[in-house]
Formats: sequence, C-alpha cells, structure tokens
Amino acid sequence: MKMVRAIIRPEKEVPVAAALANGGFPAMTKWDVLGRGKQQGVQVGDHFYDELAKCIFMVVVEDDHVTDVVDCIQAVATTGFPGDGRVFVTNVESAYTLRTGEAGL
Amino acid sequence: MKMVRAIIRPEKEVPVAAALANGGFPAMTKWDVLGRGKQQGVQVGDHFYDELAKCIFMVVVEDDHVTDVVDCIQAVATTGFPGDGRVFVTNVESAYTLRTGEAGL
Amino acid sequence: MKMVRAIIRPEKEVPVAAALANGGFPAMTKWDVLGRGKQQGVQVGDHFYDELAKCIFMVVVEDDHVTDVVDCIQAVATTGFPGDGRVFVTNVESAYTLRTGEAGL
Repeated sequence: MKMVRAIIRPEKEVPVAAALANGGFPAMTKWDVLGRGKQQGVQVGDHFYDELAKCIFMVVVEDDHVTDVVDCIQAVATTGFPGDGRVFVTNVESAYTLRTGEAGL
Repeated sequence: MKMVRAIIRPEKEVPVAAALANGGFPAMTKWDVLGRGKQQGVQVGDHFYDELAKCIFMVVVEDDHVTDVVDCIQAVATTGFPGDGRVFVTNVESAYTLRTGEAGL
Repeated sequence: MKMVRAIIRPEKEVPVAAALANGGFPAMTKWDVLGRGKQQGVQVGDHFYDELAKCIFMVVVEDDHVTDVVDCIQAVATTGFPGDGRVFVTNVESAYTLRTGEAGL
C-alpha cells in the first residue's frame, strides 16, 4: 500500500474531494495547513505573503492505484500558476480497520 | 522504528490518549482532521454528511511495540459501527530529540 | 528523497521557518498539533498540563540534505528544557509538482 499526500490550494479542496470519489477513491483524510514552495510565497501588490493557506489530502491505496490517484488530483488541482502544490508518495507497511481489526484497506 | 497513525472518532480522543498512556506509550502527537471512508459518509435522517470530523493520532515506537500500540487504540476506539476509523503503520528511519540532539526514541 | 518532520514548541514556529529559508530549504508545510513526550506534560504550579500545543513542520528534501535540515531546525528550536520536541525522518518514494506534473522535488 502507498500513502499519497497532496498539498493543494484551499479553493481546490472540494474539486479534489469530488474527483477522488468519482475516480473510485472516496476514502481520504484532509486538514488545513500553511506552506510555501521554492518561490517562498507570493507578491500581491505591495504585500508579500511568505506562507500560504493550503489543504493537505492523505489517501492510502494499493500500489497499482497510485498513478490513478495522482492523475485524479492533478486533473482538478492545477491552475498552471506557481503554488498549485505538490504530491508525495510514501510506503505503508500495514493498515487495519478499527471496527473489525481486519488488516488491509 | 514505526509510525502508527490512527484516524479515530473525535469522541474517542480522550479515551485513546488515556489508553496509550496507560499502555506505556504516553508520547504522541494528534490533531483534528476531516475524513471519510469507503462508505463516503453517513445518512442522518434527511441529511447526508459526506465528510466527518476525525482526530488523528501519530505515535512513533520501536518495531516490537507496534502491535501493543494498535491493540491499545483498538480496545477503546471501536464502537462497532462504520466510521470507527483506520490505522496505518509506516517505517521511520531515524528520530532525534531536539533538546539533546540524541538519535533514537 | 526524505521527509523530515519536526514537532516543535509553538513559539519556535517563526524562527524555524526563517532558519529553513536561510538554510536553503524554503519549501515546507506546517500545522498546529497537540502532543506530549515521555514526560507526559508539564507541571505549572498547581496545574498539570497533559497535552501541549506544538507546531509540526514537514519538509521533503533530497537524501543528502537531511542532516542540514535537521541541523537548521535544531539550531533554533532548542531551549534545553523538556518539551523541545522531536524529529522523525521517513522515506519518500516519489514526488510530483502539480502545476507541471513533473516528478522530483
């Protein structure tokens, strides 16, 4: 299993949640974060914003679904401007359903 | 070392924290999240709630304590109804105590 | 690539963000958490605080930058008292820039 984390624009939170559900990956966890990328923030007129509000999605899927999940997210999270965010993929060794104690997704 | 993440019902936050401390695993980090599982939410009368408030616990322990930590959490986090949440176990390569710079837990 | 997570005192949030940027690691994600270490909290006069506010930083870098990132954080996050927090290093298998779809950092 793999954990896919996507750090996205907050205005893309609803589209990304919908895209994941439509793509067959409804199970997800998300929360609000602050972040910045290599650009270190954005200049808006006279003001420079060093840290920007983002939303992070955490989705755990079987290995062969990682590309589909990333594609689902990228299809709706991208505006083409800096600050669209990043995706990180990491390994998950085991998972359990708390209700049943069963291993696996 | 392993990282155990448990995504639980918010009303189980205090029992899980107590169970971990009683089980010998006081060190933990937690925060509030929103999430949904395979069921995609819950129907309450006329209303469907797509995303539900959850609490995520992050506990890092030596490899041979993973089962104990998962058991501690499951013993108190489970209601038997859908939405009890999930546990994910991942690998941790190294850890440092900031105060001393020492490696390890 | 590696993910470096640092759980620090909230009053060290601004110094740590600055130290990372000055050290050449501006890209980061952070959020507020609650946590406790092995000490299980702090005694302040008559009151015992079981869980303390912390800030978590998540920084993903190439393998050979992990030590520099940890050093950057430790140089400013440490007060010498219990509760300075911990650092966890984990593996990242792949990363994508959402704007371009490009793999890598």
